[in-house]
Amino acid sequence: MIRGLSRAGIGSVSDEQFITLAAKYGFGAVDLEAEALIASHGLEGAKELLEQHQMLIGSIGLNVEWRGSEEQFLEGLKGLAASASAASSLGCKSCCTYILPATDQNPALFMAQTVCRLRIISEVLGAYGIKLGLEFVGPHHLRTAWKNPFIWTVHDTLTLIDAIAQPNVGLLVDAYHCYTTGYTADDIRKQLLPEQIVHVHINDAYDLPVEQLLDNDRLYPGEGVIDLQGFVQSLGDIGYRGVVAQEVITPAISAGSPDDLFQRSKLGFDKVFS
Amino acid sequence: MIRGLSRAGIGSVSDEQFITLAAKYGFGAVDLEAEALIASHGLEGAKELLEQHQMLIGSIGLNVEWRGSEEQFLEGLKGLAASASAASSLGCKSCCTYILPATDQNPALFMAQTVCRLRIISEVLGAYGIKLGLEFVGPHHLRTAWKNPFIWTVHDTLTLIDAIAQPNVGLLVDAYHCYTTGYTADDIRKQLLPEQIVHVHINDAYDLPVEQLLDNDRLYPGEGVIDLQGFVQSLGDIGYRGVVAQEVITPAISAGSPDDLFQRSKLGFDKVFS
Amino acid sequence: MIRGLSRAGIGSVSDEQFITLAAKYGFGAVDLEAEALIASHGLEGAKELLEQHQMLIGSIGLNVEWRGSEEQFLEGLKGLAASASAASSLGCKSCCTYILPATDQNPALFMAQTVCRLRIISEVLGAYGIKLGLEFVGPHHLRTAWKNPFIWTVHDTLTLIDAIAQPNVGLLVDAYHCYTTGYTADDIRKQLLPEQIVHVHINDAYDLPVEQLLDNDRLYPGEGVIDLQGFVQSLGDIGYRGVVAQEVITPAISAGSPDDLFQRSKLGFDKVFS
Amino acid sequence: MIRGLSRAGIGSVSDEQFITLAAKYGFGAVDLEAEALIASHGLEGAKELLEQHQMLIGSIGLNVEWRGSEEQFLEGLKGLAASASAASSLGCKSCCTYILPATDQNPALFMAQTVCRLRIISEVLGAYGIKLGLEFVGPHHLRTAWKNPFIWTVHDTLTLIDAIAQPNVGLLVDAYHCYTTGYTADDIRKQLLPEQIVHVHINDAYDLPVEQLLDNDRLYPGEGVIDLQGFVQSLGDIGYRGVVAQEVITPAISAGSPDDLFQRSKLGFDKVFS
Repeated sequence: MIRGLSRAGIGSVSDEQFITLAAKYGFGAVDLEAEALIASHGLEGAKELLEQHQMLIGSIGLNVEWRGSEEQFLEGLKGLAASASAASSLGCKSCCTYILPATDQNPALFMAQTVCRLRIISEVLGAYGIKLGLEFVGPHHLRTAWKNPFIWTVHDTLTLIDAIAQPNVGLLVDAYHCYTTGYTADDIRKQLLPEQIVHVHINDAYDLPVEQLLDNDRLYPGEGVIDLQGFVQSLGDIGYRGVVAQEVITPAISAGSPDDLFQRSKLGFDKVFS
Repeated sequence: MIRGLSRAGIGSVSDEQFITLAAKYGFGAVDLEAEALIASHGLEGAKELLEQHQMLIGSIGLNVEWRGSEEQFLEGLKGLAASASAASSLGCKSCCTYILPATDQNPALFMAQTVCRLRIISEVLGAYGIKLGLEFVGPHHLRTAWKNPFIWTVHDTLTLIDAIAQPNVGLLVDAYHCYTTGYTADDIRKQLLPEQIVHVHINDAYDLPVEQLLDNDRLYPGEGVIDLQGFVQSLGDIGYRGVVAQEVITPAISAGSPDDLFQRSKLGFDKVFS
Repeated sequence: MIRGLSRAGIGSVSDEQFITLAAKYGFGAVDLEAEALIASHGLEGAKELLEQHQMLIGSIGLNVEWRGSEEQFLEGLKGLAASASAASSLGCKSCCTYILPATDQNPALFMAQTVCRLRIISEVLGAYGIKLGLEFVGPHHLRTAWKNPFIWTVHDTLTLIDAIAQPNVGLLVDAYHCYTTGYTADDIRKQLLPEQIVHVHINDAYDLPVEQLLDNDRLYPGEGVIDLQGFVQSLGDIGYRGVVAQEVITPAISAGSPDDLFQRSKLGFDKVFS
Repeated sequence: MIRGLSRAGIGSVSDEQFITLAAKYGFGAVDLEAEALIASHGLEGAKELLEQHQMLIGSIGLNVEWRGSEEQFLEGLKGLAASASAASSLGCKSCCTYILPATDQNPALFMAQTVCRLRIISEVLGAYGIKLGLEFVGPHHLRTAWKNPFIWTVHDTLTLIDAIAQPNVGLLVDAYHCYTTGYTADDIRKQLLPEQIVHVHINDAYDLPVEQLLDNDRLYPGEGVIDLQGFVQSLGDIGYRGVVAQEVITPAISAGSPDDLFQRSKLGFDKVFS
């Protein structure tokens, strides 16, 4: 597995600092927007920057708002191929999006629409050799943040993936969402195949009843109560060899210099991967 | 358009009587199980029977329980190809199923499962040149007959069809379900294309508030308050040329001999198509 | 059916002249690039121009080179959504491409690649409500213009469409290609359904043995030996109601002023549709 | 990886002997027809037989003739769901078929038809959790055994798989076919992912120029010139953990008792896996 970082938890840094510091602290992958990196550095400059630091792009984000109106979806779709092309040109093979566990729409209709839109998205991504990773979202408070419950478990997300029926769609497995939905390392070991996993997030949780954990108030890996060692080990056991990226969503930017935060992240990974 | 009959509203008759009487009273299509007809008459016998009476099979029913457990679905799927093959061998090109407007399951999950199962079903049907017609179900009392609302409008059914994304899936447009969902002849004219329609049902409604109309207590065409002339005309206007089959679901078998019931059906069609 | 024009056969005119003259000579549709029209006139200006002349856009062309290298395909794919969006915003619902009857590549491999690429293209077009029309190409000399024969008949193109398996893919039926492949008005009547046809071209052929007819040396409708009346009538008989567009490909631009050429086109259509 | 056997190379034995002897000689998987095993032993009997010998079914064969006429295909399709259901009920997760490298049909048309039929097949198999493995066939003499070349390389088979576009379709990688198409262990290591491989065959080749090797005259693993150690190692390196089954196709049944042949197979595997 490859140690990776997302922008959540590392403070405010430029793409170049992100890559440089990630390398300095022993990470092999960063999640950032390939298209923006090429826009600022040129294609060759971006390639060199990554190669110089032996850095991969773990995943780009999906810049198509598939949850909203038809207009929003179609507007976003216009830029998808260029975004996928940029990612592909920098060797990135995954693009991720999250699925909120509740919706103001009729959930059945919203699901039909979701299947349809994500299928179109995955076709375009697939043309460029990019996989689509779907992140189920576990925290309980979000299940009632909109009128109707939608889906939030591994099982239900796999059913959605079956409905999309494209070869390049899989899960983004986030430790926080596993923890808050009661999906254990043992479940991973027994139920998942490595090819079903497009990307992985780690982060940690406060010592609170699971029902009270907030989506946007997470801890750095190793600083909370989630058994991340077991989590990562189970992924290794089933043969997952991809990126495991930190994603520490917090109400405010964490205190400390970028170096402090990268160092803190490194310590967490050392613990988790030991 | 071709005048057709389903078994709902014609009393208890054998397949052979069904075909003979349908012809006698001027109908050109019957909805029955092709496989059963071949089982009882042999393939050549079945063909001759139909040809002798210049009768088409309007649609077969879908004998796969896609709404239930995985086991039920997979068990039913085993027989689908043979059923489709039988229909095809008798020149029938459509197979229909209805979608209940509520479900005891999580509606989002049930929709993902529905998309997935109906896609597999439509692939098998398509191999034999058969279309899959999806019947939305309008009566209000059924929307609360199970725990959670599902879908019941033309719009939502078309979204499901988009999610299935197969070329051979369309609507079964039933006049009762249009009436109970407020879908007018004008809506048909403005919103539907003939290739979106796989099959059509007509039947009539009591003079009651729409909200009180029961799914299983319908009237013969021309005996109630639905503007079936307008309904059928709008179908003709958009270029629909297929079968329009009577389906009169009632709490008890209607009184009268088969001849009486076929005659009564004929009178209704004469009115509607005049 | 709606009388339409493509740019082949009308001389060199601007989009605005094209629309104005088409209207003046009784045409209801023009095939042009929606994106370019919006670029030059603005979205509102383009809409007004079309409305003022009660003109539809019959079809846009497919600006993705799916026949060439992977790089070419992926480069072209970047612009497809914007092109489809532009077409959709002007009410156009079809996009067409032609299939050469021979290829320098291994034809089996080229077909697998064609299915894959056209499926991706049709998914993107479908998101914007646009159909993809595939034009089979009949002239015999092109069947040996590249190393290996590919496909050129209605039957084979329908098999390709089955392989693509998307609801929004159909045929562009061109009278010249029908004529050079021996596909008659009677074949249309017996074998095609209107929903299988995305777009139609008419044009005429010299009085030569069919094997000698050249792809790029056609005549105006009514000036050659093709029974275009029968062709158009058969389309009407099966219920086709879309655009029938003139496409007169010639070695050099036809002599005469634009008004002459539009007038000449009109005369041909008057003959064919009489 | 799991050592497996197909029926090619083990003499004439019953299913029960096959399983018993495979276990006796250290194999963990046999390729046989699940449906036949259930027919002869009952579902419970078949399960017990397999469990008692800790034996998996590596793969069933595809009993749908997708290479022939439409009638043959549709006839075979009728039995597919039952065959897949039987395999699934015995824990088998793969079904394989081979692709001949030449065809008497127009190869482009045959490819379109192949994509279409294999897609339908894979949908049905997928419903039961079964993958479809496509075996490319390398021997040179077969490339001219029919009128037109089709496909025979990993690259072209992957393009076919892309065209089928179903999540459950992958390669059957056969050492003989790799050898005769020049696909090396290093190519496997650099180009394949484990999830692209549904099943693996090993067998060996005479010390002859590659062009002269016959499809139906193979040697037992370890008795010929193919570097099977390197082959198997490369599969392990990329993370393949599935079955590697012997398939020794020979002009006549190999001499010796079943015990002799299983023993001979065991020795080959010991060499290859050492």
